[in-house]
Amino acid sequence: MDFGYDARTEELRRRLLAFMDEFVYPAEPVFARQRAEADDPWSPPPVVAELKAEARERGLWNLFLPGENGGGLTNLQYAPLAEITGRSPHLAPPALNCAAPDTGNMEVLNEFGTEEQRKAWLEPLLAGEIRSAFAMTEPDVASSDATNIETRIERVGDEYVINGRKWYISGAMNPNCRIFIVMGKTDPSADRHRQQSMVLVPRDTPGVEVRRGMRVFGYDDGDHGGHAEVVFQDVRVPVTNLIGEEGGGFAIAQARLGPGRIHHCMRLIGMAERAVELMCRRAVARSAFGKPIAAQGVVREWIAEARVEIEQLRLLVLKTAWLMDTVGNRGAHTEIQAIKIATPAAVQRIVDRAIQVHGAAGVSQDFPLAELWAAARTLRLADGPDEVHKRSLARRELQRYV
Amino acid sequence: MDFGYDARTEELRRRLLAFMDEFVYPAEPVFARQRAEADDPWSPPPVVAELKAEARERGLWNLFLPGENGGGLTNLQYAPLAEITGRSPHLAPPALNCAAPDTGNMEVLNEFGTEEQRKAWLEPLLAGEIRSAFAMTEPDVASSDATNIETRIERVGDEYVINGRKWYISGAMNPNCRIFIVMGKTDPSADRHRQQSMVLVPRDTPGVEVRRGMRVFGYDDGDHGGHAEVVFQDVRVPVTNLIGEEGGGFAIAQARLGPGRIHHCMRLIGMAERAVELMCRRAVARSAFGKPIAAQGVVREWIAEARVEIEQLRLLVLKTAWLMDTVGNRGAHTEIQAIKIATPAAVQRIVDRAIQVHGAAGVSQDFPLAELWAAARTLRLADGPDEVHKRSLARRELQRYV
Amino acid sequence: MDFGYDARTEELRRRLLAFMDEFVYPAEPVFARQRAEADDPWSPPPVVAELKAEARERGLWNLFLPGENGGGLTNLQYAPLAEITGRSPHLAPPALNCAAPDTGNMEVLNEFGTEEQRKAWLEPLLAGEIRSAFAMTEPDVASSDATNIETRIERVGDEYVINGRKWYISGAMNPNCRIFIVMGKTDPSADRHRQQSMVLVPRDTPGVEVRRGMRVFGYDDGDHGGHAEVVFQDVRVPVTNLIGEEGGGFAIAQARLGPGRIHHCMRLIGMAERAVELMCRRAVARSAFGKPIAAQGVVREWIAEARVEIEQLRLLVLKTAWLMDTVGNRGAHTEIQAIKIATPAAVQRIVDRAIQVHGAAGVSQDFPLAELWAAARTLRLADGPDEVHKRSLARRELQRYV
Amino acid sequence: MDFGYDARTEELRRRLLAFMDEFVYPAEPVFARQRAEADDPWSPPPVVAELKAEARERGLWNLFLPGENGGGLTNLQYAPLAEITGRSPHLAPPALNCAAPDTGNMEVLNEFGTEEQRKAWLEPLLAGEIRSAFAMTEPDVASSDATNIETRIERVGDEYVINGRKWYISGAMNPNCRIFIVMGKTDPSADRHRQQSMVLVPRDTPGVEVRRGMRVFGYDDGDHGGHAEVVFQDVRVPVTNLIGEEGGGFAIAQARLGPGRIHHCMRLIGMAERAVELMCRRAVARSAFGKPIAAQGVVREWIAEARVEIEQLRLLVLKTAWLMDTVGNRGAHTEIQAIKIATPAAVQRIVDRAIQVHGAAGVSQDFPLAELWAAARTLRLADGPDEVHKRSLARRELQRYV
Repeated sequence: MDFGYDARTEELRRRLLAFMDEFVYPAEPVFARQRAEADDPWSPPPVVAELKAEARERGLWNLFLPGENGGGLTNLQYAPLAEITGRSPHLAPPALNCAAPDTGNMEVLNEFGTEEQRKAWLEPLLAGEIRSAFAMTEPDVASSDATNIETRIERVGDEYVINGRKWYISGAMNPNCRIFIVMGKTDPSADRHRQQSMVLVPRDTPGVEVRRGMRVFGYDDGDHGGHAEVVFQDVRVPVTNLIGEEGGGFAIAQARLGPGRIHHCMRLIGMAERAVELMCRRAVARSAFGKPIAAQGVVREWIAEARVEIEQLRLLVLKTAWLMDTVGNRGAHTEIQAIKIATPAAVQRIVDRAIQVHGAAGVSQDFPLAELWAAARTLRLADGPDEVHKRSLARRELQRYV
Repeated sequence: MDFGYDARTEELRRRLLAFMDEFVYPAEPVFARQRAEADDPWSPPPVVAELKAEARERGLWNLFLPGENGGGLTNLQYAPLAEITGRSPHLAPPALNCAAPDTGNMEVLNEFGTEEQRKAWLEPLLAGEIRSAFAMTEPDVASSDATNIETRIERVGDEYVINGRKWYISGAMNPNCRIFIVMGKTDPSADRHRQQSMVLVPRDTPGVEVRRGMRVFGYDDGDHGGHAEVVFQDVRVPVTNLIGEEGGGFAIAQARLGPGRIHHCMRLIGMAERAVELMCRRAVARSAFGKPIAAQGVVREWIAEARVEIEQLRLLVLKTAWLMDTVGNRGAHTEIQAIKIATPAAVQRIVDRAIQVHGAAGVSQDFPLAELWAAARTLRLADGPDEVHKRSLARRELQRYV
Repeated sequence: MDFGYDARTEELRRRLLAFMDEFVYPAEPVFARQRAEADDPWSPPPVVAELKAEARERGLWNLFLPGENGGGLTNLQYAPLAEITGRSPHLAPPALNCAAPDTGNMEVLNEFGTEEQRKAWLEPLLAGEIRSAFAMTEPDVASSDATNIETRIERVGDEYVINGRKWYISGAMNPNCRIFIVMGKTDPSADRHRQQSMVLVPRDTPGVEVRRGMRVFGYDDGDHGGHAEVVFQDVRVPVTNLIGEEGGGFAIAQARLGPGRIHHCMRLIGMAERAVELMCRRAVARSAFGKPIAAQGVVREWIAEARVEIEQLRLLVLKTAWLMDTVGNRGAHTEIQAIKIATPAAVQRIVDRAIQVHGAAGVSQDFPLAELWAAARTLRLADGPDEVHKRSLARRELQRYV
Repeated sequence: MDFGYDARTEELRRRLLAFMDEFVYPAEPVFARQRAEADDPWSPPPVVAELKAEARERGLWNLFLPGENGGGLTNLQYAPLAEITGRSPHLAPPALNCAAPDTGNMEVLNEFGTEEQRKAWLEPLLAGEIRSAFAMTEPDVASSDATNIETRIERVGDEYVINGRKWYISGAMNPNCRIFIVMGKTDPSADRHRQQSMVLVPRDTPGVEVRRGMRVFGYDDGDHGGHAEVVFQDVRVPVTNLIGEEGGGFAIAQARLGPGRIHHCMRLIGMAERAVELMCRRAVARSAFGKPIAAQGVVREWIAEARVEIEQLRLLVLKTAWLMDTVGNRGAHTEIQAIKIATPAAVQRIVDRAIQVHGAAGVSQDFPLAELWAAARTLRLADGPDEVHKRSLARRELQRYV
């Protein structure tokens, strides 16, 4: 259980921190300005492409992906790097080609894709040339229970015919998002966890309608392609577009979620660090009622509690990464749930307090806090609400005593 | 301490509830569509004007204003009506000409304005023909401490010359917002609470620059005129635009805040009721993991806690209204702080849980919850952050023992 | 909905406050000393009898009991008086003959007892000559669900034969506790809520074994007769000892609980007021790190939050009392649950913070705080745990939407 | 940062777990019975001596003490062992001669004592023959600020003359507690942190009056010698009883606190594990309203949250232990504060919920929960209240930004 950063990690951290200081933080105001003035509200501002080029040249590219196609890092090596990218979550992850949902989609294609599928979609994704989306959540059912999914994928001859409605399909408003991984039911009469399959659906397939961008607390997240409502009406793709096997969709989704969740948690910790830094800077800089805000007991309590919570979260995430590396994602199931339960809730609270210290500025577009808050809050819902994970974790704990 | 609703209140409640059912709720989807398609993002959608006409005809107009110029209601009579408007906070308050910041501005003009000022500005405001703004908060200082305010109002001959920068000036993006009440310092060398004055500044005065709309968690609140950053550069107004006396600004601001805070709290309770209703409806309608969400113990706990909290909040607000009516706003100072401390925080928590029950829909534009949340959260900052009120209330409690 | 204190209430409050100042508070150290030195750990120290005599002479006697046998007060009239007694919960309630469980038992006898039963037991109870106990909770089942109760009451000829084990039978260790109201099943095959009956069992009946005093966080509560484990083995009483009718036990228990719960909540509010007073006094008197504890922001936050919570709790309790007076206990069912949910939890938190301000003194026997805390904490369990009440209240809320 | 258990730790864990199963848990009911029937309420029941003999024979002895005099373990090695002893906190720590305050006192004597002092007091303590006390806290001042301490230690010739009043001197009611380490001021005019010294005061020195046992939420903790109020009146000891140097008392106290705090936190984690186990067992075994308590959503949420919190606490404690081992106690200062802030509060909450699941049994003497709760709660005060540690930790965090 050694969570220390090894030499490779330290070297990458050094390079990444330099990249943040030299390129990413200075790009934040540029990004904000470009975003405010964008003609196309659903594509990343031009500065992102510049950052991508620079990051790639510096070898800070695809670090999320284990194996030879990516950075070849373990989860434990990647964790502190992902944390750093979380400090500027709109810029750093896409700059490094390490942004969701592409990361999860690349993992799926890397692990389950055919050679043809990988050539067609994984290669341009790894090159950062196109974006992708993962179409699972549906507006009409509680999608935290994947067996509720209603989208139909019917085999007709050599084709799959897809009908259904999805929403909160992140990234899909971006015209450069070229490929969707769609989850649906191929066999509603099979066992509960064998009804679902995943198929690749190119964006330009007839019958695919990207209808509108969904909001998250007022944000459209246009810079990373928004969150689309997408309707699939008699969409036809060749059967070769199936990922893995028929009925394997649920298992692939589960396999995809483990790394996805830990990546989110890693970045959330970086977001919390950013919030604490902003909170401290503001508290030191402002005065009210005759003394700096930093001298107020309540603010000091918030800062201390934030520091103590962050330390605990980071250790739990590192342990989880280490477990995934050593006993596999399945063996780390409980810990993955634990970080998913603990991290978004704690980070939401930390960011909320940083907002409070900032007053009106905290909820404004002039500071990243309100947007960080919305991201943390949403992660208490995304990939399954907290309550589902708690129930599941408790069930396992209770089984020891039955 | 009789909080019962008297005959007049019951009669108005009946009429207001009918108006909500027949006009306001049906207008909500229209409003959303018009807002999404608006050419001018900073003006109320046309449906609001229709609602105003209807409300006025039904005698549901200016209910917030005591005395002969308004509805002539006591705070206790107005409280349950304001609560009802909070159930549709973007539509009902403006429909009844009872929306902030116009309400507070009309109160100020009604109480402290000269006959000339009332004729010029109060009359069209009471008629719902124009809107107004209250320019107090500044980006560069902790404005919860009003003595920090840096905007200068210098008398030069028969004019005041105004220089300063304000932000989060609600309503000021609306081109029909014609008049600003500006708070600034006329005499920085006077006693702490006698340095400030308020002057009327028409929107079209040279030197007034309405610079940009500030956001609140991604929302621009364009439909009620947004929250503007406004710069005043060598703005000149005649000395007759002074409200009250020189040095009286702080006192007027305090007088304005009491009713403002209780109105916010009344509406917040209506917002919480709306959230609970949505939470229950959703919990009944959706199923996950084989049973309705309403059968989950955690959801039931949330519903029960929400109900218990709302009951307590409502009673505290009613008591405060009753106190304001019987011993005056100054005598109700502690209670006004108490509701300001209790209500936004509790309603934020209730709405947050309603969001959680809705999953992704909860953070979306398809339900009012995320926007309600942002409003409740912001009221933990606006008109002084919770912590300032708590410190002040505790000081008074402690004084009994010194 | 008039919660104001009427003339009779004000007059009684005045007299009760004088009694507290002149007799009860001065008796507290005497009581502590007598308790520490007691030969019989299970009887009230002698000073209690003196207080009883004084209170009775002053007309502060049996105020809890409506009707001609008691003080003849409404719940709304009694509420502020019970609150005052809560400020010294070990002395004032017994001094006024208003202490649980006698109060509930007297209510039961008053309402459901035969003339003979009332003569035998109600009269000496009303005179404060004997004490009584209510034997419902059992160690072997979750007694929050009264249908779980396992004690058997079998009719054999003209007698009931009782077998079962009870615990946390408050007051029963006191040798002067002469009569038990025992809840058990007369007909396990009847409908769920018609299986139970209540019988009167004199303490000296053969087969009654008062086995040991149960503790509450280390306290034996000996001064009010402790909390006994009692075993009933082939205990025989005449059938005339039945209270009400066979199968009516559940309904009588429910009828008993309403007033019992509101009395607890009233007193809890007085306990919270006592805690706030102690917290403020200590914060003013002590210094650490160069300034009074009262100057620390966190302590001020606690004091403010306590004040705001207490105001809300008191209003909710008063409303509930008013409802019980106007629509009856059954009509006030939701509100009774609401105060049971809200009050112990909030008071526990308030007392906990008062303890924290006191440091080691807070957990000691030199201040009443630790004992107040244990009482508040236990009331989150007693008469049904919070969670049971929340579930039930939520079910009713949800029914509106089904 | 390797927190894994090495071979020695694993071997000791194995032996300790066997000792717990074979001796400690079976001794718990014996201990409870002996405690209830004890003639001397202030000495450990006889079963403790039996456990000590067994533990010593098994090499489970003085494990807390680094170096050749003790177990020779690092903090990281000791942590998981101390955690296990926390599962039975009244029996296991004294059985292993690893109970506070002896542990801290032995550390002080080991590190700062003269050869003579060590021979006289350290040797019998290491042998488990006598007990000791640490007399620092005073009733009359906020002792969390050690500079407040008022006890005087005046040098008169070859003697120190001690006058002062202490309380909550743990273990001092035990007649076998033979030696007190007393903290007082030798030079009130020196620098704030150089005024204090520590001297050894044998219990039987004239002028030492062990006055009474202080309570902790009703518990007298008699089995580990209680918490005494002790008065020192003109107590004279030879100057050779000084520990370290004059003016060095504050520094020694600080040195003593680091290990003391981490040991408390380690044991608290074991206490939390015990509470979770009891909570799960009860939830599985009991039914209410037609289903096992374990099926209730709220209880499942509690279990999950407990598990997630415990995992985080353990990791933070292990990291702190590792830091103390690698960079020293001073270098681990922030982390020691962090665990002191995080652990008692979280464990208190976990135990509170376990109590709630148990109903009345939870607050009784039949389960260890209420006593565990009191211990956890008290540790939010002991060794400095949470708020002091938070303020200090925040100050350091803020210093980065000044």
